[in-house]
Amino acid sequence: MTKTQALELLLQKVEAIKHINSALSIVNWDALTSGVPQKSLPAAGAMVGWLSGEAFRRFVSGDTQEALETLSAFASELSLEESAMLRELNRQYTKLKSVPPEEHQEFSALTAQSQVIWETARAQNDFGMMLPYYEKIFDYQRRLCDWYGYEKHPYDALLDDYEKGANVEVLDAFFSALREGLVPLVKEIGASGVKPAEISGEFDIDKQKSLLPWLTDFVGYDRARGKTGEVEHPFCTTVNRNDVRITTKYHADKLLSALFSTVHESGHAIYEQNMPEALDRYGLADGASMGMHESQSRLYENIICRSKAFAARLLPKLRETFAYFDSWDEDSLYRAINITCPSLIRIEADELTYSMHIMIRYELEKAIITGDIKVSDLPGLWNDKYTELLGVRPENDAEGVLQDVHWSGGMVGYFPSYAVGTAYGAQFVNAMKKSVDVDRCVEAGDLSPVVGWLTDNVYRHGAVLLPSGILKEATGELFNPAYYVDYLSDKFSSLYK
Amino acid sequence: MTKTQALELLLQKVEAIKHINSALSIVNWDALTSGVPQKSLPAAGAMVGWLSGEAFRRFVSGDTQEALETLSAFASELSLEESAMLRELNRQYTKLKSVPPEEHQEFSALTAQSQVIWETARAQNDFGMMLPYYEKIFDYQRRLCDWYGYEKHPYDALLDDYEKGANVEVLDAFFSALREGLVPLVKEIGASGVKPAEISGEFDIDKQKSLLPWLTDFVGYDRARGKTGEVEHPFCTTVNRNDVRITTKYHADKLLSALFSTVHESGHAIYEQNMPEALDRYGLADGASMGMHESQSRLYENIICRSKAFAARLLPKLRETFAYFDSWDEDSLYRAINITCPSLIRIEADELTYSMHIMIRYELEKAIITGDIKVSDLPGLWNDKYTELLGVRPENDAEGVLQDVHWSGGMVGYFPSYAVGTAYGAQFVNAMKKSVDVDRCVEAGDLSPVVGWLTDNVYRHGAVLLPSGILKEATGELFNPAYYVDYLSDKFSSLYK
Repeated sequence: MTKTQALELLLQKVEAIKHINSALSIVNWDALTSGVPQKSLPAAGAMVGWLSGEAFRRFVSGDTQEALETLSAFASELSLEESAMLRELNRQYTKLKSVPPEEHQEFSALTAQSQVIWETARAQNDFGMMLPYYEKIFDYQRRLCDWYGYEKHPYDALLDDYEKGANVEVLDAFFSALREGLVPLVKEIGASGVKPAEISGEFDIDKQKSLLPWLTDFVGYDRARGKTGEVEHPFCTTVNRNDVRITTKYHADKLLSALFSTVHESGHAIYEQNMPEALDRYGLADGASMGMHESQSRLYENIICRSKAFAARLLPKLRETFAYFDSWDEDSLYRAINITCPSLIRIEADELTYSMHIMIRYELEKAIITGDIKVSDLPGLWNDKYTELLGVRPENDAEGVLQDVHWSGGMVGYFPSYAVGTAYGAQFVNAMKKSVDVDRCVEAGDLSPVVGWLTDNVYRHGAVLLPSGILKEATGELFNPAYYVDYLSDKFSSLYK
Repeated sequence: MTKTQALELLLQKVEAIKHINSALSIVNWDALTSGVPQKSLPAAGAMVGWLSGEAFRRFVSGDTQEALETLSAFASELSLEESAMLRELNRQYTKLKSVPPEEHQEFSALTAQSQVIWETARAQNDFGMMLPYYEKIFDYQRRLCDWYGYEKHPYDALLDDYEKGANVEVLDAFFSALREGLVPLVKEIGASGVKPAEISGEFDIDKQKSLLPWLTDFVGYDRARGKTGEVEHPFCTTVNRNDVRITTKYHADKLLSALFSTVHESGHAIYEQNMPEALDRYGLADGASMGMHESQSRLYENIICRSKAFAARLLPKLRETFAYFDSWDEDSLYRAINITCPSLIRIEADELTYSMHIMIRYELEKAIITGDIKVSDLPGLWNDKYTELLGVRPENDAEGVLQDVHWSGGMVGYFPSYAVGTAYGAQFVNAMKKSVDVDRCVEAGDLSPVVGWLTDNVYRHGAVLLPSGILKEATGELFNPAYYVDYLSDKFSSLYK
């Protein structure tokens, strides 16, 4: 096989997988925005299974290995994009091939089942029902660490699956910094007695909807290159860079939920919509990692849209829409969208306490992988850690250890990417502020300098660089959690003075 | 290759193609019900092209030919379903392989382009713009006849593509019977001076929508096994037998349009929803032909829902919804939903004159294929035939020869299936009436005996039997246009007495 043949073969595989995933994205959108007829579920599942399997089979079959080896031999002659494609394909191929196929198949069947069981177990608050599943799942994950291989810590093998380059050394330092910087602050705020006014009452859902085009236009989501929909659990999905779709869930009694979750999904979408088209054929017009994606969603959601400047822009729009806000001023709105209060449920957590929820999951996962704790110990340890870090204790496992779907879906090592991504965002904004007056942009209602900076410094790279490379290029240094800790400390100390 | 291996290989191909088509059906639904972002069109087209191409490549590649030959050698040992699958796959494979690949590719590119040009040509009433395209398209179709092969008439080769087993001999007899039986009737009605009251005015679209669940439930479309949507040009699409989707276009000033087009699409959907599940793996849970499908849509639309009995059920629902109908009675409604009037546009034609539009296209296509007329003669001949058969003459080509998309899309031989199917429907209902009191079912608001008869006699066969086989099994005789002519003569003579 020549270099050209190897390159052509791999590009063809990348193209096939891209098309299959694009179709699957629409199939998934269709199912989540308008449902699947109950009786169609088996056939719909078989179709999705076949298409996903086909993408997998295309990748691992035929001459993939020979092409990867051939191209690797020409490493010095490859363009930046070709090298990055080769790196990503090698990475995925090596991982996929390291797992015995029968083990992979058994595990897929297990997690398909355990996700269904989890729904019931959570509803019935029955950890015992999940215990045998969790034990098998974590047992598989421990073996996965060996199959994948690792240098220092077995958990590193899993972390890298979700956040390329993440490892225990980096994350221990990261979470230590958070613990040191934020846990005392959370306690101080609790003791301060400051109680900002809350937004309460019922807000007409059609009126809520009327705010969204303004909001998504403001942050820079291009509605002409996507679609919007309503779903139970909001998400963003990419059909291609010119068809990036976002969704919203409306709650009459939680006005802020639809607004901020829509900005969150818009952040994911803006990243996808601004990938360079030229990277598409290499499969690199994609987020650099889960964490990098989350850095964008949470940057727009929190750093931009929970700012004082944005509260000032939001208030007149809220007043136009809801008479309720006649008596509110900018400062009270700013405080209301930043109320922090230790709570039990991760997905409802505020900006300050969010990463504490992740820290708990990180510490527990790490200890299970090393065998320091047993799966059956999880409920008690979970509750103890919530008590220690957040000063709240779940009354039952449904609001404790059973709250997240991830473990039942076989995803171990995923959670940290949420917190790491959020911290990336703070590091980016710190660097951005050297050349962009972010508050001024918000005040002027023109975020294009912000989106422009992120495009030039983050989106432009697609998945060509690793997260560490993007951070270095964009901010001049590697991952540094201090910016995140400082940002939160400054903001919340001042809010709760 | 053993018999078992050949069978397995073909079943696997059928399964792969089924899954790809199922995904494409959702992709298409998504595009037509909520649009494709303008800038996403190239990528969306590439994705659809790749997936369709993949279904094609799967079918023609690898050991398909060997498997077909192997299985053919065991013909006497095959089950009914296996034989039918082999017959269908052989039929498709032989046709596909008969066309030189470079010719096929060139023609695909030509029709992709000519469909776009057609939009403009029709809008600008410019036949000259389409002429070079039509000439190339018909030239290709003439060569296609030779590649496919035929016994008696070259046009037979094309007809069979859309209506299996149809040929010039059968269709000449069919259209002669129509011409003889219906043309004089159309003229008599025109001369009778009878002018039934028309439904006119504006009808609130939300109120129109509120009627549809009742209507589709009435005819037997199972809404729990599908979805409904709004589009520009209504269609029915099948994801799988438990997810069959129908669409509607509402016009404030044409109340009947949404109602009857929805019944039409429901008819297609009822056929699909009632296919035997066991035929699915053979790729035979499918309409037996285009004509057989059209027989069902038009049977529900016209024979059932334009009946006197249905007018009596419809009136109270219309009265509940629109005060406009307070002054209407059952007889006037029955007459209003059956107004016949020679017109220029096929898709807006009434039940009686519809097949005249098809006859014109049939005669022109046949004459072009034999070379008896030239493509450049089409506009004049088209107008002459409208004058002769319907007594109306197009004032320009936009409302004449340019009105249909079919030829620009490369579909020659398609039109007759519409008329043939309609006639099948009349033949089925004639047979059905020996055991089912259809009017009584409509009066009682319970069509299940009708759907049940059609399921047992038509749907049950899927695509196992050819259309001729289904007609023979269901009605005891081969295709006999007399039932259709008699049905229309009786109905419209009586209406316009």
